[in-house]
Amino acid sequence: MSNSREGVLAQDRYTNREEAIQKLRDLMKGIKFCMLTTVDDDGFPRSRPMALQQTEFDGTLWFFTGKSTEKSSQIKHDQHVNITFADPGDHEYVSASGRAQLVDDRKKAEELWNPFYKAWFPQGVDDPDLTLIKVEIEQAEYWDSPNGAVTYLFGLVKAMATGQRATGIGDHEKLQLR
Amino acid sequence: MSNSREGVLAQDRYTNREEAIQKLRDLMKGIKFCMLTTVDDDGFPRSRPMALQQTEFDGTLWFFTGKSTEKSSQIKHDQHVNITFADPGDHEYVSASGRAQLVDDRKKAEELWNPFYKAWFPQGVDDPDLTLIKVEIEQAEYWDSPNGAVTYLFGLVKAMATGQRATGIGDHEKLQLR
Repeated sequence: MSNSREGVLAQDRYTNREEAIQKLRDLMKGIKFCMLTTVDDDGFPRSRPMALQQTEFDGTLWFFTGKSTEKSSQIKHDQHVNITFADPGDHEYVSASGRAQLVDDRKKAEELWNPFYKAWFPQGVDDPDLTLIKVEIEQAEYWDSPNGAVTYLFGLVKAMATGQRATGIGDHEKLQLR
Repeated sequence: MSNSREGVLAQDRYTNREEAIQKLRDLMKGIKFCMLTTVDDDGFPRSRPMALQQTEFDGTLWFFTGKSTEKSSQIKHDQHVNITFADPGDHEYVSASGRAQLVDDRKKAEELWNPFYKAWFPQGVDDPDLTLIKVEIEQAEYWDSPNGAVTYLFGLVKAMATGQRATGIGDHEKLQLR
């Protein structure tokens, strides 16, 4: 996969915010769980499966969590996070990086609420321990190919911040071979 | 999944190195790709799909890569890495953290070589850009449950280093509910 080191550089296909968001939105379709990676106090990336929001992606991802969880304390200590999801059957792999913060937003919680979350928060959005993790995605990459030979890369950070073409995100490692 | 905050604490089922390794080995069976997460110079965790070695896991994971890849430079800058793999069909999710280093070891490369890697290294183990990423796994967790309600946790770091029971790895977030 990303062992690739030869090939044609990926075209900057997603150079503006809306296109990049639309592409990520499409990639998320049908995905129920992702891995959320935080960085712990010892500097180790740590991952755990999280339910992926089932509302339309608009550049920000939201997760429910408990205030007292390890990931909450990691995010308070270090905002840098990564989200991955994969559909190994389709050989589709997505990695998105961004900054996370804990947000108490009752209205947003109601908007995102799904009976599925009752398993963790029996009291629903009124659960006093419930909080939201808000992740603003800054850059993302995806790979899709039966033979692992393809990479499309798109950077959101600059496009989102400035409306300009993202630069400095792609490198020779992220390749499009087909 | 790890949104869980109630339940019975996971038993320390894997308190010694051999049991933990055997469990991880079992979890890896049939898994062809994982996501390897490094930390970039800006502190963002960055992930990409990597072929998972098809030799038996003994506590150390090996990957082929190019010396000039972005991940190689990230590992030189920060050894902390995380590996995740998932079987969404079986609702199995594994996260393993450890320290990585780049190693030029021709003998090891030959041992791990698989024709599959020719797509990236047409010259095989003689490719001058080829190097190995060696990851010594220090801790790992897994989740498996159709309803995302289960966590088994096992820590390798202390068990591996000292032969003693791993402590301080589990917390209330990592739970066994079944």
